[in-house]
Amino acid sequence: MSGETVEKYKAISPAEFFYKYKEIAGFANPARALYQTVRELVENALDATDSHGILPDIKVVIQRADPVQEFYRVTVEDNGIGIPPDIVPNAFGRVLFSSKYVLRQTRGMYGLGVKMAVLYGQMTTGRPIEVITSKREYRRIYFFKIRIDINKNEPVVLERGSWRKQRDWHGTIVSLTIEGDWGKAKARIKEYINRTATVTPYANIVMYTPDNEVTLYKRVIETMPRPPKEVKPHPYGVDLEMLKMIIESGKEPTILEVLVENFQSVGEVTAKDLLSKAGIDPSSNPRNLKEDDLLRLINTMKSYNQFKPPSSSAISPLGVEVIKAGLTRMFEPEFVDAVTRKPSTYEGHPFIVEAGIAYGGKVPLSEADKPILLRYANKIPLLYDEGSDVITSVVKEDIAWDNYMVAFPAQLVLLVHVCSTKVPFKGVGKESIADVPEVRREIKLAISEVARRLRGYLTAKQKELETQRKVVHLAKYIPEIARSLEVIFSGDGFDKGTLVKKLVGIISAKTGIPENKINEVIRGVEIGA
Amino acid sequence: MSGETVEKYKAISPAEFFYKYKEIAGFANPARALYQTVRELVENALDATDSHGILPDIKVVIQRADPVQEFYRVTVEDNGIGIPPDIVPNAFGRVLFSSKYVLRQTRGMYGLGVKMAVLYGQMTTGRPIEVITSKREYRRIYFFKIRIDINKNEPVVLERGSWRKQRDWHGTIVSLTIEGDWGKAKARIKEYINRTATVTPYANIVMYTPDNEVTLYKRVIETMPRPPKEVKPHPYGVDLEMLKMIIESGKEPTILEVLVENFQSVGEVTAKDLLSKAGIDPSSNPRNLKEDDLLRLINTMKSYNQFKPPSSSAISPLGVEVIKAGLTRMFEPEFVDAVTRKPSTYEGHPFIVEAGIAYGGKVPLSEADKPILLRYANKIPLLYDEGSDVITSVVKEDIAWDNYMVAFPAQLVLLVHVCSTKVPFKGVGKESIADVPEVRREIKLAISEVARRLRGYLTAKQKELETQRKVVHLAKYIPEIARSLEVIFSGDGFDKGTLVKKLVGIISAKTGIPENKINEVIRGVEIGA
Repeated sequence: MSGETVEKYKAISPAEFFYKYKEIAGFANPARALYQTVRELVENALDATDSHGILPDIKVVIQRADPVQEFYRVTVEDNGIGIPPDIVPNAFGRVLFSSKYVLRQTRGMYGLGVKMAVLYGQMTTGRPIEVITSKREYRRIYFFKIRIDINKNEPVVLERGSWRKQRDWHGTIVSLTIEGDWGKAKARIKEYINRTATVTPYANIVMYTPDNEVTLYKRVIETMPRPPKEVKPHPYGVDLEMLKMIIESGKEPTILEVLVENFQSVGEVTAKDLLSKAGIDPSSNPRNLKEDDLLRLINTMKSYNQFKPPSSSAISPLGVEVIKAGLTRMFEPEFVDAVTRKPSTYEGHPFIVEAGIAYGGKVPLSEADKPILLRYANKIPLLYDEGSDVITSVVKEDIAWDNYMVAFPAQLVLLVHVCSTKVPFKGVGKESIADVPEVRREIKLAISEVARRLRGYLTAKQKELETQRKVVHLAKYIPEIARSLEVIFSGDGFDKGTLVKKLVGIISAKTGIPENKINEVIRGVEIGA
Repeated sequence: MSGETVEKYKAISPAEFFYKYKEIAGFANPARALYQTVRELVENALDATDSHGILPDIKVVIQRADPVQEFYRVTVEDNGIGIPPDIVPNAFGRVLFSSKYVLRQTRGMYGLGVKMAVLYGQMTTGRPIEVITSKREYRRIYFFKIRIDINKNEPVVLERGSWRKQRDWHGTIVSLTIEGDWGKAKARIKEYINRTATVTPYANIVMYTPDNEVTLYKRVIETMPRPPKEVKPHPYGVDLEMLKMIIESGKEPTILEVLVENFQSVGEVTAKDLLSKAGIDPSSNPRNLKEDDLLRLINTMKSYNQFKPPSSSAISPLGVEVIKAGLTRMFEPEFVDAVTRKPSTYEGHPFIVEAGIAYGGKVPLSEADKPILLRYANKIPLLYDEGSDVITSVVKEDIAWDNYMVAFPAQLVLLVHVCSTKVPFKGVGKESIADVPEVRREIKLAISEVARRLRGYLTAKQKELETQRKVVHLAKYIPEIARSLEVIFSGDGFDKGTLVKKLVGIISAKTGIPENKINEVIRGVEIGA
């Protein structure tokens, strides 16, 4: 047939794949790429510090790198755990090589971010990434210049060196030069840093911009979220390929030991129970089991209702104190509160939802239909694609704000944080969370809970205002009443001054309003009269 | 420090990466996976037929594959070009191996879809993919059972065979068994097939469902979109890595020949002009050029304004006839029209936007604020994430529907199709298009153009209605007028019957309304009177 053409098939490396489709990782254009680069480097810096119990000191420097072209050098320095020099080339020069492929909450999760920035640098400026790093226990500091061989997906080390430590430094400094668009990216980058600082009040973060601005977020508390620990998979999250890989890569002689050694919440008793329900001999050699046996076992595991829920030691919520401190530092509100929900699970992954509210004070006015919404996932702020995020959907559809005495526009900030060993992001750009029913439910409960506290505050405030209004009303009549009483009881030694004093004392005791406040009102009435 | 843990780094294969993060390719849960599997197989089937000038005959069969568990066998058969047997194992068993990595419009584009379905099958049912295929010129038909070795990202052929062709058959039959949720996926899958059929009125598509329903979309026209051709990259889309790879992989002895041989719209004259502007000797050995030279050359290419725009031979719009036939088959509307815009470009990629409108007739009523919107990209229907798609945004924000005499809800379907060598999808799930300014502009223009045609129709219809109303009004008086005239001119041989006839004749000639229609009105008046 005339239109028929020969199909040319080829394999591409993961580096080439993500280079070709850079948009799906957030590198769609120079403005977005600059934002995404800052973001990936800052998130790595925070993962290297607070996730390991170190109070973060983060420095972000964005400089123009060419007098004519829109080239920018982005440098991010942290005081984190550092990276072993034998790991550095792969960590920055090989796509799909990462420390993030573990069951533990981290900001990064796809192991792509910094490599995407390296690829973008290569495409636009040709400059390699520069890395300086040292671990606490090292005597030397190591230096590298690295590029990615895209066809082979391999690091090419262009330069390396090391020098003796002069002072007790540990951490990592990463520099990248990429084409950017500071004019267009500026607002988002500042918002990103600001939002990051909101949930890391325990961090010092300083940013130097190409406009020679310096923004400093100083540490306001020393309390840090508990670092997450790596955990084994929960049986609810098992699939056939996972079970096969566990069996093949391990050396356990029996299927009983496979279950006990590799899964959370499975001791010997539970494992035996599972295997008996699935009709499998506990002493079977796991490598001899048929696919049908494994499928039966998986079904049994997924429908077993006596497991403990997935361990939450792998996740690290911000905590009420951190959220309140962060919102207070940012907004100086009249009222602030936060809740951390209990751990919950979806598909074998533990997750926790937190919500914080800042109201009044210096909080800006919201839009006409919803509060100012600060979305976070695994401690990273989500700035794009708000419209397709489950948090937005809950805020707009599931919360009857009238019930919480809120009418928009209002001076109201709502912060929602979802943290998990696996946040159900909609894309590798990590900008919006998918609508998973279990997660949606917890988001709704978290927001309702913190909104109820706001209502409590607003109710109390209203009551107080009403009492004050009543007292003001009453106080106006005190001199008059006192005068009448003085006339009636004259001769009994009750003069007006004493009577006023007594009445003020009684009212103050009943309402809790200080005597001097009541006296002020009385003076106002007498002067006005 | 006590909280400090040792980071464990590892590399994973692309197969393992996409297995771990299956959600980002649309395989989030059993319902979504069933939908996505049908979709990927149907899209491959269509790419194997109409993209090669073959009128498609596509058969989709979804069956329950287990009496207890929710396992489904999905089989899709096409009459396409077939796949060479030496290619089959990699084409179905190796992630990032594909015929889609070329500059030519295809439905698939990431080379991921069918492999994701294979991975999902392995995870949930353990069953391999089965492939039967033959090309037109072959004497034999080939058969394979394949699984993916996830750790190695390699195909494992479990079974293979071949038999002699008994009849002149060519094409491919693919069967997969996965865990699914037909109950939840049913509506979307049917909508997907329906929407696909809307833009392929030249295809026979038949679907058999687990509910024993058979849906047949019969071919209504034989006109097919012109198949797309592979093209060279346009200089506007060049980047430093691309240029380096072209130089390294080619054998051209001079930079002049590199430009002439590898880029669209670059002849010798243009190439010399570019090189002189960039200050590079045309006879330089390209492998000796420095990065700075290449960067200067790229800048020159990107800012050069005398290139022809990117060739549109690589893209294949539906065309006005196909859109109109498709909308008519689906909606039997009162009015239908479509426009295909001229090719435009973004970042060196050619693209075309098309828009079609179906109005009235059997078109259902729309929502309260916008038409029923059918979004398409490279001929595939987009069903999810409507809220974050640039088409939705244009329809809601940029089009003043009042101006086109449309008030919602209306019996109005709007079809928008964006086709390109690279559609700027927001994710590998291919569900929504990013907001690229050039694309947004063309979408707006296409919709405005077709909406103007609708307005033209509605205006004419209104005018006609008004004329009819006037005539009706006038016709009521004809007998009266005739009677009066008869009185005045009595004796001149004008009887009432003749006068009515003459008046009806004059009005009919002036308005184009048939005489019998006018006579009907007159009869109505006389009977009523």
